[in-house]
Amino acid sequence: MLVHRLIERKRDGGRLDAGEWRTLVMQYTAGAVTDYQMSAFLMACFLRGLDRTETSALTDAMLNSGSRFDLASLGVPRVDKHSIGGVGDKVSIVLAPLVASLGIAVPMVSGRGLGHTGGTLDKLESIPGMRTNLSLAEARAQIEDLGCALMGQTDEIAPADRKLYALRDATSTVESIPLIASSIMSKKLAEDLTGLVIDIKRGSGAFLTSFEQEVALANEMIHLGEGHGCPVVAVVTAMDRPLGRACGHALEVEEAITALKGEGPADLMEVTLALGAEMLVLARVASDASAARTDLNAALSSGKALARFRKVVERQGGDPAVLDDTSRLPQAPARETYAARRAGFVSRVEPRAIGRGIIELGGGRKVMSDTIDAAVGFVIHVKPGDRVEAGQPLAVIHARDDAGIEAGRSVLDAAITIADEAEPPLKLVSHRISRNGVETL
Amino acid sequence: MLVHRLIERKRDGGRLDAGEWRTLVMQYTAGAVTDYQMSAFLMACFLRGLDRTETSALTDAMLNSGSRFDLASLGVPRVDKHSIGGVGDKVSIVLAPLVASLGIAVPMVSGRGLGHTGGTLDKLESIPGMRTNLSLAEARAQIEDLGCALMGQTDEIAPADRKLYALRDATSTVESIPLIASSIMSKKLAEDLTGLVIDIKRGSGAFLTSFEQEVALANEMIHLGEGHGCPVVAVVTAMDRPLGRACGHALEVEEAITALKGEGPADLMEVTLALGAEMLVLARVASDASAARTDLNAALSSGKALARFRKVVERQGGDPAVLDDTSRLPQAPARETYAARRAGFVSRVEPRAIGRGIIELGGGRKVMSDTIDAAVGFVIHVKPGDRVEAGQPLAVIHARDDAGIEAGRSVLDAAITIADEAEPPLKLVSHRISRNGVETL
Repeated sequence: MLVHRLIERKRDGGRLDAGEWRTLVMQYTAGAVTDYQMSAFLMACFLRGLDRTETSALTDAMLNSGSRFDLASLGVPRVDKHSIGGVGDKVSIVLAPLVASLGIAVPMVSGRGLGHTGGTLDKLESIPGMRTNLSLAEARAQIEDLGCALMGQTDEIAPADRKLYALRDATSTVESIPLIASSIMSKKLAEDLTGLVIDIKRGSGAFLTSFEQEVALANEMIHLGEGHGCPVVAVVTAMDRPLGRACGHALEVEEAITALKGEGPADLMEVTLALGAEMLVLARVASDASAARTDLNAALSSGKALARFRKVVERQGGDPAVLDDTSRLPQAPARETYAARRAGFVSRVEPRAIGRGIIELGGGRKVMSDTIDAAVGFVIHVKPGDRVEAGQPLAVIHARDDAGIEAGRSVLDAAITIADEAEPPLKLVSHRISRNGVETL
Repeated sequence: MLVHRLIERKRDGGRLDAGEWRTLVMQYTAGAVTDYQMSAFLMACFLRGLDRTETSALTDAMLNSGSRFDLASLGVPRVDKHSIGGVGDKVSIVLAPLVASLGIAVPMVSGRGLGHTGGTLDKLESIPGMRTNLSLAEARAQIEDLGCALMGQTDEIAPADRKLYALRDATSTVESIPLIASSIMSKKLAEDLTGLVIDIKRGSGAFLTSFEQEVALANEMIHLGEGHGCPVVAVVTAMDRPLGRACGHALEVEEAITALKGEGPADLMEVTLALGAEMLVLARVASDASAARTDLNAALSSGKALARFRKVVERQGGDPAVLDDTSRLPQAPARETYAARRAGFVSRVEPRAIGRGIIELGGGRKVMSDTIDAAVGFVIHVKPGDRVEAGQPLAVIHARDDAGIEAGRSVLDAAITIADEAEPPLKLVSHRISRNGVETL
């Protein structure tokens, strides 16, 4: 009876008060509200929107459906980074040990692959033995000892969000700004953070399709953070091409290890340092972004960041020897160099096509129960704007077999466009959004 | 995968083609599309709307999900009446045998109680022994012999509509004009009709809340009928007060029997004759409405209509003796006269309050599995506009016990308003809508 009235009200453009959000989320989590009622409600939310008070109430309801990390007693700043999708985005793997090595606690709770984007957990699990299903207690102990944990959303954290997100994913109600913001923040606020940096992707490979939406999402999360004593800063980065060169689970771990040695591709390093600097400033361990970059670079060049990652891998059951010998990571049996079909300028390297291509090669899930081939993927050496000659090697396809190589070739034919003129790509790190507004970088 | 794309498209204001509607409805009926996916889709339909081509495609998809009556071979006109909700509306019970007695086949497929409105099937089943769950074959044979069948929607008729309607009812997606029109017409077109008369209720007790919506619904159904060679005429009748005096299952059957004897309350007779005249003209057994009324009145006064109802009751297992002695219908053990609290003019007899009051007294369902007490209800002797004195009997409460009488008193206190001045009620039969447009009567 209650739920009928709430669906009807949202359907007709009305709003729910905080108590109604709490009851609805509780009853859904308990199974008293059915999936089909909730999915009708979510579609009404998608089309009618939520105001700020409602978004905050929904966030609280999901946050309070589970447990929280109790990290305040550690006595150190606690800052996390969250990225809204991306292809080739291995930043979390680099950033968590790097920032942790500078005295900040980083309870990095990551996800699985979603749509065309890869998941940090899936990538980490390509390290032989590596576990990511840490309990809250395990993770807390590890953070106390090592400063960071690389883990999945446990059943303890925001179980209501977990259930709601799965339903949204199945019913085309994902891309709603208040629903995205409350979903992310309900999990992040459970981490007991003193600051949060959001990497908002922009361009053809991003989830959101306009800059206005990206700013709105950032502002929504900044507002939710403010209400919980957790300052949030968003950095807008380009996702009109993959980040770095490696796209595919084990390939990306290999590239992350290279980056932790300070030798990653320039674009990956730039995004990592931009996000890391924001984290250090939020944590007040650096006075400004420039001082923060100096600290970050020192941690990379001294081997401190890599050493921290080694400890984390070891602690989570992974084989630390992969850091010295990346050939211990899963290797694709079939490899082929992909060459330019013509001369000209690379005008597009389409991240969605690459992301979907990895799935096609067996490196992603079509349904949640699919297993992933961590070895397959692409290493792409060119970026939009590069001048290339006909026959010049552009990429390497890593596949299971000849059929995979052939599929990979078609993927790259579609993903990489060579044109007569160079089109300028998006600026890699273009905006910073904070409570003070949008700043163009 | 398909269903995701369809939900997304409707969510974003796009349209589905006929093949997509067919596939979606088939997959839902077969269980390949889940309830939660369909309910999200239905909410998107509710908020984004369907165009005429889509409404027609959805109607066809639901119609083709089941079997049809094969009545064309009877060689007589086949006309049905459908009413959009109502309180105290026992017209179908009078009209089906009345019109059938004049040589028209009436395959009257009715429903159960819905929200605050009563259901014809529930009313008929208050006649001891009466069955309404006829199979298509049984109903066809009965229509061949007696001209009409009073029956429920079988699993054979539009099963997709049945499943979709139950889901809409549970997810607050009922009141959408294209969804209502396609739901009704998918069942009515399965009856193999040569004409259909729609009784569209207007006023506070109606499902739709504006005259514009009512006209839109009528036009949608007229359009769907045209596309299937079934001319549709809609008559707009007042539902700002109950129709007739009796409200409650057995009480309404008693009043219907009185009406079949030509002695029903004036408003019930007026609506019955207005709808019946349209049916006769559509069937071409009367040249115009005036000739049709003469025929209808003759069938009532001669006892021909009552005799036909007797045969129908007998054929469907009911006790025909109730027609001679209505005390054989279920009787409420507790009765009390309800008197005017003050002198003045009756300004409102609120049908929703009466309809909900019947449910409260045990004469309706809160959930589908509830059993109904057919005996309870109200007989209300006054109409809006009547002048009454303090203490004058206005109604009789029929209840299970003293608690029911007390509840009934509160219901009538809320439902009947007596004011200093008479407010004019809505015109009882106010508009006629056909392919030629809206005609004010």
